[in-house]
Amino acid sequence: MARVLAVLGVGVVPADTPVLRADDLGVLRGDGVFETMHVRNGEPWLLNEHLDRMARSAALLALPLPSRAELVELAGQACAAWPAETEGALRLVCTRGPEDGGPVTAFATLAPIAPASIAARLDGVAVATATLGVPAEARTEAPWLLGGAKTLSYAVNMASLRWAAQQGVGDVLWVSVDGYALEAPTATLVWLADGVLSTVPAATTGILAGTTAAYLLSQAEELGMRAAERLVRPAELHTADGVWLASSVRGLTEVRSLDGVPLGPSPETTRMQKLLGYV
Amino acid sequence: MARVLAVLGVGVVPADTPVLRADDLGVLRGDGVFETMHVRNGEPWLLNEHLDRMARSAALLALPLPSRAELVELAGQACAAWPAETEGALRLVCTRGPEDGGPVTAFATLAPIAPASIAARLDGVAVATATLGVPAEARTEAPWLLGGAKTLSYAVNMASLRWAAQQGVGDVLWVSVDGYALEAPTATLVWLADGVLSTVPAATTGILAGTTAAYLLSQAEELGMRAAERLVRPAELHTADGVWLASSVRGLTEVRSLDGVPLGPSPETTRMQKLLGYV
Repeated sequence: MARVLAVLGVGVVPADTPVLRADDLGVLRGDGVFETMHVRNGEPWLLNEHLDRMARSAALLALPLPSRAELVELAGQACAAWPAETEGALRLVCTRGPEDGGPVTAFATLAPIAPASIAARLDGVAVATATLGVPAEARTEAPWLLGGAKTLSYAVNMASLRWAAQQGVGDVLWVSVDGYALEAPTATLVWLADGVLSTVPAATTGILAGTTAAYLLSQAEELGMRAAERLVRPAELHTADGVWLASSVRGLTEVRSLDGVPLGPSPETTRMQKLLGYV
Repeated sequence: MARVLAVLGVGVVPADTPVLRADDLGVLRGDGVFETMHVRNGEPWLLNEHLDRMARSAALLALPLPSRAELVELAGQACAAWPAETEGALRLVCTRGPEDGGPVTAFATLAPIAPASIAARLDGVAVATATLGVPAEARTEAPWLLGGAKTLSYAVNMASLRWAAQQGVGDVLWVSVDGYALEAPTATLVWLADGVLSTVPAATTGILAGTTAAYLLSQAEELGMRAAERLVRPAELHTADGVWLASSVRGLTEVRSLDGVPLGPSPETTRMQKLLGYV
């Protein structure tokens, strides 16, 4: 399956078309926002929720986004060029545009899902904790630190994943300097303990509010669970009834070991993945 | 003066030529490195020092850079298309390249220096402190946090400068959660006290090692000063004999107020700028 590329104001173009100028601040400064969505049955899942979050990210960056209708059309153009029976990963990207001024550059790419991501849904993932170098609750009083914004500045996220690969694990759980689990570089932490399905509070920590995790927690009652947001230490995760990383493309992936200590498997994983539409 | 754009393997092209694909990780993830140099007399100043730092940044990102000869040639192509009598800002950028693999994308842009930057050399700058949300010495034990690397992930740097403008000041001095001055979003802190010209230690704090500041401190003896690296709190800067922000394009800019408290002017500013070749 070839990648699809749609550019705002242009339409679908060959995927290897250069679309960004050298002086676009999205390139020079990672100054832009993005969202990644799961495409199923030819449509992006939770599109509204993702566009809501993109709008929140753009507000934090004082970035003038294209209109919502234009972003919906851009996503639609990419999906229309994609086979409806194939799942895919849709990225919607808006950069600040040329340094000397000018409109944002907006585009959508739609690509196949990596085999490793599909395998992780079935097999789970080994995770290592790593410091993010920040106290758990330092960022929310300082909007210039962009807590909660999904920006193009992901160099530390990518470096953390490369570090994980060097450690022989598949993902990282970032931990605050005061010892609380925060999030993974591209996924949200979810865990089950005593019938409560929990995630880390985004509002007080500056982590990204996970779209997939939020949907899952909104369905907790259907799973016979309660939902909560709270801080947790990695040691507590070792005794949880299930630990997962939630993200749009990989869906729900069970954490099968944390810092070398085996976890799970949880009997809930398949049921939760079905609820989310990933199996 | 129009912007110049040179692309590795291509040469000089019109400045508005799109050079980056939508799936370049430099775009999608801010996953790349850059350097900005001051061009004077038709040549980039401190080119070797900047290329050394780019190599260190690339090593931290495990980014396979083009050869040094290729990068020198790229800078030379941009400078050859630029009038020798005009100062300029040369950016050298290397991204990780397309997501599915492939070589880095490398290019150079050479642009006029913004009038505000030139004015700041003469007038100095008003600065506000703002937390960076990290302890002063948390990052160096965690290489995945990319302390010391000059990456394309500058969204927080740009947001900090936007926040400064909202406060009615021209720049920010980032401060650690334990109260130490670190650096500015695009400049290095330098101060003079008791005949000692000091800057913040990069090796222990994870700030960027400033190229202009390092050159200045290497000339301290010529200025009749000693040079040192140490941590400092903003309160101490209020009683210093001079406080500056050093960067390649703006050169040496005196901090004329810090959090609303007037500083200086220092009688050393012009002499130091002359030594650096910015007046």
